[in-house]
Amino acid sequence: MIQKVIIIGCGNVGYHLGKRFHEVGVEVAQVFSRKLEKATRLGLSIDAAYTDSLAAIRTDADLYILAVWDSAIEKVQATLAKQLPETALVVHTSGSCPQTVFTAFQNHGVFYPLQTFSVARSANFEIMPLCVDATQARHIEALEALARRIAPNVYRITDEQRSKLHVAAVFVNNFSNHMATIAHDITEREGLSFDLLRPLMLETALKIQAHEPRKVQTGPAVRKDESTIQRHLDYLQYDRQLQELYTLLTKSIMR
Amino acid sequence: MIQKVIIIGCGNVGYHLGKRFHEVGVEVAQVFSRKLEKATRLGLSIDAAYTDSLAAIRTDADLYILAVWDSAIEKVQATLAKQLPETALVVHTSGSCPQTVFTAFQNHGVFYPLQTFSVARSANFEIMPLCVDATQARHIEALEALARRIAPNVYRITDEQRSKLHVAAVFVNNFSNHMATIAHDITEREGLSFDLLRPLMLETALKIQAHEPRKVQTGPAVRKDESTIQRHLDYLQYDRQLQELYTLLTKSIMR
Repeated sequence: MIQKVIIIGCGNVGYHLGKRFHEVGVEVAQVFSRKLEKATRLGLSIDAAYTDSLAAIRTDADLYILAVWDSAIEKVQATLAKQLPETALVVHTSGSCPQTVFTAFQNHGVFYPLQTFSVARSANFEIMPLCVDATQARHIEALEALARRIAPNVYRITDEQRSKLHVAAVFVNNFSNHMATIAHDITEREGLSFDLLRPLMLETALKIQAHEPRKVQTGPAVRKDESTIQRHLDYLQYDRQLQELYTLLTKSIMR
Repeated sequence: MIQKVIIIGCGNVGYHLGKRFHEVGVEVAQVFSRKLEKATRLGLSIDAAYTDSLAAIRTDADLYILAVWDSAIEKVQATLAKQLPETALVVHTSGSCPQTVFTAFQNHGVFYPLQTFSVARSANFEIMPLCVDATQARHIEALEALARRIAPNVYRITDEQRSKLHVAAVFVNNFSNHMATIAHDITEREGLSFDLLRPLMLETALKIQAHEPRKVQTGPAVRKDESTIQRHLDYLQYDRQLQELYTLLTKSIMR
C-alpha cells in the first residue's frame, strides 16, 4: 500500500495532486521544485517538507511522482537514481511520454490525470479520469488504490493507449481552446465583447457530456449551406491561413 | 410594447423561444410548423393555437418571429406578406442572414439567441446572449424590452456585427464540436471510452469563462514540443486529411 508520497515538480499538475493528496489524508512527505518559492508555497500549504535540490530528496517514500515537463523526465529520473534505491517506485504524470523514459528504475509507472490544470483554478477530481499503469501487477493495484482515494474515475491505460488518448486530448482541449482564441480575435477585431460567445462554448461542452459529438453537430458545414460558408470565407480574407483553416475544418465536417 | 407573439417554425430555436415566452408570461398566440405534429406539440404545451398552414396565420400579433432555416426565410416572409399588414413587425432568429431578406416588410428586425439549441436539452436563458436589431428605433427598444423579459444579457447588434459574430460562433461551437468528434473517433478506433475525454472538454470550456483563451492555451503546439507533435502526426498516418488538419491547427497555435 502506498502511504508516503514525494512529488517532484510543483507546476500545475504537481500542485493540484499535492493539494488533493493532503485533502484526502495521503501523506505527502516532501515536494521538490527547481524554484524554491514554488516548493515552499506548496510544501507549507500541505504540511510537506520542501526543497529545490534533487540531492535532498528523501529515500523512504512509497512513491515518487515526477510531475515535470516531458522533456525533463529522463534527466530527473537519472539524477534521482543516484540516491534512491533501485527498487523505488517512480511514476510520471505525462500524457504522451512512454515508460521507456525510465532507464534507471525497474519499478516504474504512470499516474496521469486526464485534465487541463491551472494553478488559478481549482481542480475537480470528482469528474477527472485518472489513468494508471506500472510494470508490476502489484504496483498497478497499489496505484489504482491510491488513485481511487483522490478520484472516483480510475482507468488502467497502457502506454500504447495513453499515447493515442493524448492525440485525442489535444483535439478536445488544445485545439478547441484554439478555436476559442480565433473567435476571441474576431470579436476583438470587430469591437465586440467575447462575453457574447462564452456561454456558447460552455453549452458546446455541456452538450457532449450526454451526447456523441457527431450527433449534435450543427452549423453551415453539416447542413452544406454553401452561401453562408462563402460569406464566412469572404470575411476571413484578411488572413489567408485562417481562411485555409476554415476551409479544411468545413471539409472535415462535411465528410 | 410587444404583448402578443406568433412563432413561425417549431425547430430547436422556435421551440425553446416559445417555451420561454410562455414561462415568463409573454403571450404566444399561435405557432406554425410545416409539420403539424411539431406545431401541435409546442402549441399544446404553451397554450398557443397551432397550424401547419401559413395562410392561417393570424394578423393581429405585435411580433412575428421567423425561426426557420436561413434558406427558407425569404420565401416564408413573402408568403406571409400576402395576408399580414405591410406594417407588421417581422423578425428572424438567424445568426447570419442579413435583414435585406425582408423584401416584403418595412418593419423588420432580428431576434437572435446566440446559443446552440437542441430539443432534447433545456435552454439556459440566464446565460444566453440575445442579440436584437430593427429598422426603427422604437422597434429596437420594444425588442430589447421583450428580450429582457426572457434573458438578462441583451445586446443590440447590427447586421454587420452579427455576420462577423456568426463566423466567430462557428469556430466556438461548430468547429469545437468537430474537434470532439475527431477525438471521439480516435477513442472508438482504439477501443477506449469517450468518457475519458468528456471532463476535459467541460474544463476547457469552464476555463475560458473567466480567462482569455490565448492565455490558457496548453499543449505541444504552444510549447513547441516538436517530438510530441511528430509522434501525433505519425499516429494520424491512417488519415491524410486528419494529419493535414493537425498540422494546420498546430501551425496556427504556434503563430
